[in-house]
Amino acid sequence: MDYDRYDRVRAVQWQSDHLRLLDQRLLPREERWMDCRTAAEVTQAIRDLVVRGAPAIGIAAAWGVVLAAQQGEPLDAALVMLRAARPTAVNLMWALDRMKKRIAAGADAAMLAGEAQAIQDEDLAANRHMGELGAALIAPGSGVLTHCNTGSLATAGFGTALGVIRAGVASGRIGQVYAGETRPWQQGARLTMYELVRDGISARLIADSAAAHLMKSGAVQWVIVGADRIAANGDTANKIGTYQLAIAARHHGVKFMVVAPSSTVDMATPDGEAIEIELRDATELLSTGGQRTVVEGAEAWNPVFDVTPAELIDAIVTERGVIERPNAAVMQAVFGG
Amino acid sequence: MDYDRYDRVRAVQWQSDHLRLLDQRLLPREERWMDCRTAAEVTQAIRDLVVRGAPAIGIAAAWGVVLAAQQGEPLDAALVMLRAARPTAVNLMWALDRMKKRIAAGADAAMLAGEAQAIQDEDLAANRHMGELGAALIAPGSGVLTHCNTGSLATAGFGTALGVIRAGVASGRIGQVYAGETRPWQQGARLTMYELVRDGISARLIADSAAAHLMKSGAVQWVIVGADRIAANGDTANKIGTYQLAIAARHHGVKFMVVAPSSTVDMATPDGEAIEIELRDATELLSTGGQRTVVEGAEAWNPVFDVTPAELIDAIVTERGVIERPNAAVMQAVFGG
Repeated sequence: MDYDRYDRVRAVQWQSDHLRLLDQRLLPREERWMDCRTAAEVTQAIRDLVVRGAPAIGIAAAWGVVLAAQQGEPLDAALVMLRAARPTAVNLMWALDRMKKRIAAGADAAMLAGEAQAIQDEDLAANRHMGELGAALIAPGSGVLTHCNTGSLATAGFGTALGVIRAGVASGRIGQVYAGETRPWQQGARLTMYELVRDGISARLIADSAAAHLMKSGAVQWVIVGADRIAANGDTANKIGTYQLAIAARHHGVKFMVVAPSSTVDMATPDGEAIEIELRDATELLSTGGQRTVVEGAEAWNPVFDVTPAELIDAIVTERGVIERPNAAVMQAVFGG
Repeated sequence: MDYDRYDRVRAVQWQSDHLRLLDQRLLPREERWMDCRTAAEVTQAIRDLVVRGAPAIGIAAAWGVVLAAQQGEPLDAALVMLRAARPTAVNLMWALDRMKKRIAAGADAAMLAGEAQAIQDEDLAANRHMGELGAALIAPGSGVLTHCNTGSLATAGFGTALGVIRAGVASGRIGQVYAGETRPWQQGARLTMYELVRDGISARLIADSAAAHLMKSGAVQWVIVGADRIAANGDTANKIGTYQLAIAARHHGVKFMVVAPSSTVDMATPDGEAIEIELRDATELLSTGGQRTVVEGAEAWNPVFDVTPAELIDAIVTERGVIERPNAAVMQAVFGG
């Protein structure tokens, strides 16, 4: 397919001595770049959601290690600091483990930069491959619903779930895309719609709570989402609301696809119960655009991920292939090595 | 119970020659009142969501007829105009039908004012009665989740679903209340939290998409919602997202309660398929607080109601009593007369 036609954004850009990040808190209103010159600045950018999306977080963290090496900082401390930036996405841990192995093998800053570049390049290649694999599951003329942002902004490029959607649109299998807003951070409204409109893909935004009503109308045949961590039995942690979509999809006979690179699979996590779910500050729900929208004194509960059990997932797509009806045995066969 | 302790807001106030409405678009940031002096102004206020909530819309429309009568306007035209203000809520049609009958019987403006006052007074009494009936279904120490705003702001006072919650909190049956934001208009975030915090009721706001994750945690035993129209078989139209909550509730064994005055029941509508669902402007999803938040060129699909089928409803509470496991036969027995 014509990748340039359908994939125009690169949010994480290495610049030989600093990391340029497209500030995703300001999109789509403003395209402002932030330059990170230390591992601490990269850590803060991850924590503050300047960069977000499990694969993009892993890539940014790898470059954070390179910055620490270039400046002669203690690398063990940088690894610990970066690892603690966000708890749920396992790609972060996976990327840092790759860097740690190279450090243990005596790699210098230039060699670490090579490893970070490899992580980034492999992610883009994996996404393009997953796009083909996932799109092949979809019948021509289908409508699909996605959640959060899993596109070029969330990865090295092309995207995971949004990569499948790009490939499906390019091949004519997908006729209409729906995107959920993804409160409270509005990744769907702000970021996914930004990518889709830039690419000229026909897409409609919906309120997160309109998904079941949409499914009942017959307009969507697949829900396609990314993942922050996939446990050894196929249980999948992803953006809050994913679980609710999976329940509604099963209720309506709509299929449910998870798309993520194999670095998202954590065979050391037996099941979803063992995944730490990040709770973020209540202000994300109590204020909008810096303005308080909820009465003073109000409390909020703000988990930003949830776990979809494997039995509600029809297909997990990684660059290693498609796993239909995932369970512990199949996951072990594919990822246990 | 001590109603004054738990019910302090009156959003629709008749002032002998005009109608005062608490502008619900501005809450909680500003408590601004709007004076309507003509039926056309009341119609516009309903259409613009200055006043919202099915019972409150019906009450406001009844006072709109009184304004037309006081000013010697053609009453038939006023009835037609008010009836078209919003299509889904049946209380609007019901209240106008009551006024129309009095007009047909030759009532003057003062007599029409008596009828409007009766509609308003009966609504408050019905809500207080439903509060007791609904709360009695709830086991002590329960957590509950509600959606949209069904409180004093949406009714003549006390509320429907929120009336049950008030009665349940007052009697110690409800220990913790959760409220969904209710995108795009944020009735839960802006209005329900406003009422609950004012009343000193312990409540936590959640993203609409966090409801299933909350249910899985075991924190809620009931979902309690209002209704805009209940069909003859028990299918219930209510704020977008209600259907999705009902599916998630059934999946987790959480009970689902609909609370609405009998004026919400429309025996002329056979089932949910026959209910017109209002689609509102896409800008409600594309902008927030007057600021564009989604990229230019984006489209949105913005249905503001959905239909929950009767089989997902454990109890419908009206002032006539509790209907458990509603279906056409039971509905006919209670409301067919």
